[in-house]
Amino acid sequence: MAEPLTLTGSAPSFEGWTCPLPLRDSPTIVMGHGGGGAMSGELVEHVFLPSFADASLAQLADSAVLDVAGSRLAFSTDSFVVRPLFFPGGSIGDLAVNGTVNDLAMSGARALFLSAAFILEEGTDVTRIGAVAQRMGEAAARAGVRIVTGDTKVVESGHGDGVYVNTAGIGMVPAGVDIRPDRAEPGDVVIVSGDIGMHGIAVMSVREGLEFGTEVVSDCQPLGDLVATMLAVTRDLHVLRDPTRGGVATSLNEIARASGVGISLDERSLPIPEVVANACAFLGLDPLQVANEGKLLAFVPRARADEVLAAMRDHPAGAGATIIGECVESHPGMVSARTGFGASRVVDLPIGEQLPRIC
Amino acid sequence: MAEPLTLTGSAPSFEGWTCPLPLRDSPTIVMGHGGGGAMSGELVEHVFLPSFADASLAQLADSAVLDVAGSRLAFSTDSFVVRPLFFPGGSIGDLAVNGTVNDLAMSGARALFLSAAFILEEGTDVTRIGAVAQRMGEAAARAGVRIVTGDTKVVESGHGDGVYVNTAGIGMVPAGVDIRPDRAEPGDVVIVSGDIGMHGIAVMSVREGLEFGTEVVSDCQPLGDLVATMLAVTRDLHVLRDPTRGGVATSLNEIARASGVGISLDERSLPIPEVVANACAFLGLDPLQVANEGKLLAFVPRARADEVLAAMRDHPAGAGATIIGECVESHPGMVSARTGFGASRVVDLPIGEQLPRIC
Repeated sequence: MAEPLTLTGSAPSFEGWTCPLPLRDSPTIVMGHGGGGAMSGELVEHVFLPSFADASLAQLADSAVLDVAGSRLAFSTDSFVVRPLFFPGGSIGDLAVNGTVNDLAMSGARALFLSAAFILEEGTDVTRIGAVAQRMGEAAARAGVRIVTGDTKVVESGHGDGVYVNTAGIGMVPAGVDIRPDRAEPGDVVIVSGDIGMHGIAVMSVREGLEFGTEVVSDCQPLGDLVATMLAVTRDLHVLRDPTRGGVATSLNEIARASGVGISLDERSLPIPEVVANACAFLGLDPLQVANEGKLLAFVPRARADEVLAAMRDHPAGAGATIIGECVESHPGMVSARTGFGASRVVDLPIGEQLPRIC
Repeated sequence: MAEPLTLTGSAPSFEGWTCPLPLRDSPTIVMGHGGGGAMSGELVEHVFLPSFADASLAQLADSAVLDVAGSRLAFSTDSFVVRPLFFPGGSIGDLAVNGTVNDLAMSGARALFLSAAFILEEGTDVTRIGAVAQRMGEAAARAGVRIVTGDTKVVESGHGDGVYVNTAGIGMVPAGVDIRPDRAEPGDVVIVSGDIGMHGIAVMSVREGLEFGTEVVSDCQPLGDLVATMLAVTRDLHVLRDPTRGGVATSLNEIARASGVGISLDERSLPIPEVVANACAFLGLDPLQVANEGKLLAFVPRARADEVLAAMRDHPAGAGATIIGECVESHPGMVSARTGFGASRVVDLPIGEQLPRIC
C-alpha cells in the first residue's frame, strides 16, 4: 500500500532559485558543478587533473591507496556544505565523519585517523558550532576513528553559511585487498546494502517543508565494519562504492566506464522505499539519482555472491542488502535497467544537480 | 635608510568593517576566532577539544604524529580563505600547498601526499579556478609532494568567496626525530629562518591599496627541504613552528606555555625589514603579530646552535636565518623582549584578529 503523501509545508519556492543545469560549457561555476554528475566530472577532468597530474588522483576512486613504508594507506577528503546543518537522522557533523570513513571503506580500509577543518561564518551561534562538534565526536566514537588534527578559519558574515566542515582521513588497507573502480568484470554480481534514496529525501523534506506521512530519516552511518565483515568472507571484492551525490546512477556509470563493462540492473529488485518512490514522483526526481550516506554498492564475483550477501544481511548496516544486477559484456561503459514490463532503458549519469547542497 | 612610505591607493576603508575584537565571551562567532590568537585558542579549547577528546589533538602541534604499522606519520590539515585570491608573491593555491607542507615539516616530516578540497562559489570564473589549480600543481611539484585525492563542492552565489581550499597532508617522520611544542628547554637558542612580516603586509597592501615604495612580496615557500638540512646537522631539534596567523608572538607564546619555559628575545636582533616596520608603524600593527608563510622558528640546544644556523644560512630558504633569543628558567610560560634601550617588555599573545582572511 502506498504511503500517503501530504504536502503540509509551503509549496516549493522558486525564489532565489539557481539554475542547476545551464550550458555545459559555462565560463563560470554553476551549482551543477557540485552535483557529482557529468558536470562535476568535466570540471575535475578539465581543470584539476591537468594541473595535479597524478596517477592516484586520475583513478578517481573514493580514496587513494598509497604505499608508505611497506604499508598500504587509504587517504581521502571531503568538504561538507549541507543545508540545513541538522536534519532527520543526522547533521553536517555526522556526514563529515561518516562521509570520509565510508570513502576509506570503499578501498577496503579501516579508518584510523581523521582531520577536521572548519570554515565558520561570523555571527554563527557558538552553541551551534558546539553541537556540530559534539555530533562529530559521537560519530567518530561510533566509527572507531580518532580526530587527531584540525583547523579553524572564520569568514565575514555573508561569505559562508554557518559552518562548512572538511574532513580528511587515513585508513589501512588489509593485505590482499585490491578494491578499485576499474576491477568490475563481466559476471560480477551487483549488490546494494539496503534502501536507497533516504538521505536525499530526508534533507529535501526539511528544506522544502514537505511531509510524507512517515518521517523520512537519513541513512547516514559508518560502513567500515560492514566492509570488514564482507572481507572476512572473501578478500576478492572487486569494487565498492558509496552512492552519495548523484546517487546509484552516477556510481554505476562511473564504474561501468572505469572497468569497461556493461551493467544490467533489474528495476524490480531495486530497494526503493515507497516513501522515496512517492516523494520522487511528486518532485520529479529519479530515485537512482538521489544521494545516500550509509549505503554501498558491491561488485562481487558470482561464485562468492551468496556468501557475501548472507554476511551483509547479518550485519545491522547491511540488513536490507539485495542483488540488483550484474556486469555483462554487452554495452560496455553503459548501465541499463530491465523494467517491470520487460523493456530495457538506459540509466544515464545525471548531468547537473538534482538537490544542491545535499552533503 | 628608511624606505619611503607613500600611500598611493585609497585610504583604508572602514565600510563593511567587522569588529575584530569584541567581547571575549561572545555567544556568536566573530572574526577574532579565526585570528590564531587567544580567541582561536579558547574556541578550540572550549568547543572542539571536549567533543573530540584526543591526546594528539590536545597537543595542538602544527601536525599530529601517529604510529601506523611501525612508521611514524605526520598528519595535518588547513583551510584557506585568503582575500584576494592572488597577491604579490603567491596565491591561495600556493598557500594551500605550502601551508600544509610546512605544518608537516614542523614535526620534522617530509610531506609525501596532499588532498585538495574546493568549495567553489557559483558564478566564479572557471579560468580563475583553473589558475588556482595550476598554482597548486606548480607549488606541489616544487615542494616534491603529490596531490592524490580531492573533492569539489559548489555553494550558491553569496555563500562563499570565489574559492575556499582545504588541504590535508601526510608525511613521514624520520627515526630519532621528536619535535614537539612542549620540548623547549632553558638554554635552547631561538632561531628564525629569515625576515618576518612579509606575507601579512603583502596581502594587506593589495587589499587596502597601499604602496610602500618597494613592492612587498609574500614569503610563501615550502620549508621541508630546509628542515631536512637542519636535521642532517642534528636530529635533536626540540621545537619547530612556522609563525603564520598571529605571527611570531603567537607561536612563541604557545611554545612557552606548552614547554613551561620563559622565552627572552633581543628586539634588536629581530629581522624586521624596514618596509614591514614602516608599514606596521603606519597601520598600527606589531610586526611580531603579522603572519609569515615561509619562515620557521627553531628551538635548538645551545651546543648545536651555531652549526644549525650555519646550515640554515647555506640553504636558500634560510639565507636570512638569525638568532633572536633564548629559553630561560625565569618567567615560565611568558615571552619577554629586551628593547634597544635595555628595558624589558612582555610580548603577549594577540587576542583577536589583526588582519582577517590572511591565509
